[in-house]
Order: sequence, then structure tokens, then C-alpha cells
Amino acid sequence: MADNIADVRVLPCTDSKYIRPFRIHYKQDGIDKTWDYMKVYNSVIILIFNVTRKVFIMVKQFRPAVYAARVEVENGRIDTTKFPGSLGMTFELCAGLVDKSGSIEQLAKQEILEECGYDVKVECLERITSTRNVGTSGSLQTLYYVEVTDEMKVAAGGGLTEEGEMIEVIELPLKDTKHFIMDESIPKPPNLQFAFMWFYANKAKNHEN
Amino acid sequence: MADNIADVRVLPCTDSKYIRPFRIHYKQDGIDKTWDYMKVYNSVIILIFNVTRKVFIMVKQFRPAVYAARVEVENGRIDTTKFPGSLGMTFELCAGLVDKSGSIEQLAKQEILEECGYDVKVECLERITSTRNVGTSGSLQTLYYVEVTDEMKVAAGGGLTEEGEMIEVIELPLKDTKHFIMDESIPKPPNLQFAFMWFYANKAKNHEN
Repeated sequence: MADNIADVRVLPCTDSKYIRPFRIHYKQDGIDKTWDYMKVYNSVIILIFNVTRKVFIMVKQFRPAVYAARVEVENGRIDTTKFPGSLGMTFELCAGLVDKSGSIEQLAKQEILEECGYDVKVECLERITSTRNVGTSGSLQTLYYVEVTDEMKVAAGGGLTEEGEMIEVIELPLKDTKHFIMDESIPKPPNLQFAFMWFYANKAKNHEN
Repeated sequence: MADNIADVRVLPCTDSKYIRPFRIHYKQDGIDKTWDYMKVYNSVIILIFNVTRKVFIMVKQFRPAVYAARVEVENGRIDTTKFPGSLGMTFELCAGLVDKSGSIEQLAKQEILEECGYDVKVECLERITSTRNVGTSGSLQTLYYVEVTDEMKVAAGGGLTEEGEMIEVIELPLKDTKHFIMDESIPKPPNLQFAFMWFYANKAKNHEN
């Protein structure tokens, strides 16, 4: 089980490949200023709608950063009997870091196959828009939409075993989406909420009956 | 001018008060794993709608992290003739870090006054929902909605001068919002896009005529 979390230790980290803190010094309108930020990869995010069964295809996974933000750390340890791994489980759209060469659409296609098991054509990806993290990283998230059918499901999905990914593919029925968006008991990122609202404003009329 | 940026230097940063990297070690279903994350403050974000003139009240500001993500750094310097400060200007909702004691609604009230100059009653804040950063920090953003009138505008806003804030208060007419949400030329965070979509689904009918 992906939420079977044990033996947790937390240590300061100074040599991360993923979180590289920088300090920027600058003059703004003549006034000296500084700001701490970090360099992270951009990402691509895909809203996947299965038209055969009118369900959204999403991923459920353990997110260490969410878990760490919701628990108490004592002397570098976390008591998993008090703070079970389920606290770190999130619902998200299929997504990937832009850390490889190739087009962003090609990356999106690959993530959809690896994480969710659907084989989509690059031409079928519809670009929705892009957004930025503004406070700490400035990283760009580009959002796509794609419709899939049951016939396009060619693999189980679940992420790459060799990279240790333990991803559960989740199907959320269209009719449950509105409640899901507002439900604060399930940790989820704002791009997911925006994507669902975008679907309602732009696509739902084709699929509700 | 807030986008008059000069003399920019970028240095590695190991002692940030704002970005504190940690490495978490854990066993997931018996398999050893690690993840790098950072501790940041939670935040409160407020969608402000001025009903007198049917405009959204937003903030425009220079965001060093966005600027740094959009430019080239050469030997720790950024050439501002090639990369003007305008690249780092973002449009955002009024927001603040949860770094003080007191209720989150009280903090929201204070940020609305400091950044936008409106004096709102805590009881008028409507909680929309909350979202989390899932990848790097796990931090919680709680989203509120509040309606204001011109009579509630008691100060210029613009942020705290003593904290060096240079914030421009922006009014976005309701009718321009749909175009704005999708416009990729303006850097903005996903919570802003979600909040506007939420408004359309839940509040617009009271204000469109």
C-alpha cells in the first residue's frame, strides 16, 4: 500500500538536486532589495477525461512534502502511529517535470502513458493555458486537456517502478467533480481545481446528458 | 516605478529564513525512499470584488523568483538591458503569509487593508476552500472571497513601505476577466485562475446585467 509509511527521519539538506536556493540582490526604483528563491523544474500537467465512461483520470500518491507539512517532527523523527502515511496522500492531475529534452507535448504524452496507462496522440493534446509559481520558484506549469477512450488504455499506469513511483490511477466521475473541488479533506493543488472549473465552462456541455 | 530593476546579482543561498530545505527519509511499503522538500509559511489569499464598480481588486508587483526564472544568469549577473524588470511583474490576488499569530481571517483583513486599502469586516470574509502545494513545500493556501464598496476604501494600499513593499493596486473589470484568465502573456498563479472561475460559477449571476 502506498500509504504504508514507516521509519521516517527528517534532516536538513544542503545538496539537493531538486531544491537549489539562491539569493537575488537588486535595486528596485533605486532601493536595495534581496529575495530568496529556489530553482526548480517547470512542469506539464494534463487534465484527462475518459469519454467512454465520463470519468476524470487522476493520480493518487504519497507526497512527502505534504506529509511533512501536516505532522510534528521531534528530534528529526516522525511518529507514524500518531501521524499515519494517509496524511500525505494527495489527488492530482497527471503531471511531469520538464527535465528531459523534447517537446512539452511529447513529455505530456509520455507521462500520460507512464502514470495512467493511456496511449494518446500528441495532436490530441489541447493547450489550456499556463501559470506560474510566483513566490518561491517562478516555475512555469503548462496545462493541457485530452480526451481518452477505454480503447486507448494500453497499460496499467502507476508510474515507473525503476524510479520507485507508487501511483494509483483514480477515476473521478464527472458528477462528483463539483463536490470534490471544494472538499478540503483531500489535499490537492490549485491547478486541479482550475482545470475542473475550466472543463465545466468549456467542455461539460458536450458530455452531460 | 516598481519594474525599474537594476544592478542584479544572484548568489547561492544557504541560510534563508524563507526557504529551508530538508531531506525526508522513509520506507514506503517496505522500500527505502528519500525526498527533498522545503518548509515555507502557509498563506491566505483573498478574491476581492468591488461591487460599486464591478471590478476585481488585485495586486501587481515585481516578483524576483519569476524574474529569475525568465532570464539568463551569467556569472551571477543579469543584464537588465536585455532582461528588463517588466519580465518579473505579476498579477495576483491579495495575499499574505501566515507568519503572525492571530486568526487567519484577521490576517486576511490586515492584508486587504495594507495591500489594497479596503477596510473589511472579518465576518464578511467567505471561505472558498483551501489547496496545497504538493511537490516541494506542502504548504496550505486558504482562499477567501469578500465584496467591498468604494466607501470601504480608506487608504491607498500598496503594501508596507517599511517592509519595502511596492505593490500597485489593479482593478480588473468583470467583463475582462475571462480573457485575462487564459492570457499567457501575464504571469499569474493558478489560485487566481481558480478563484475567478469559482466567481463565475457561484457569484457572477448577482453582478452581471
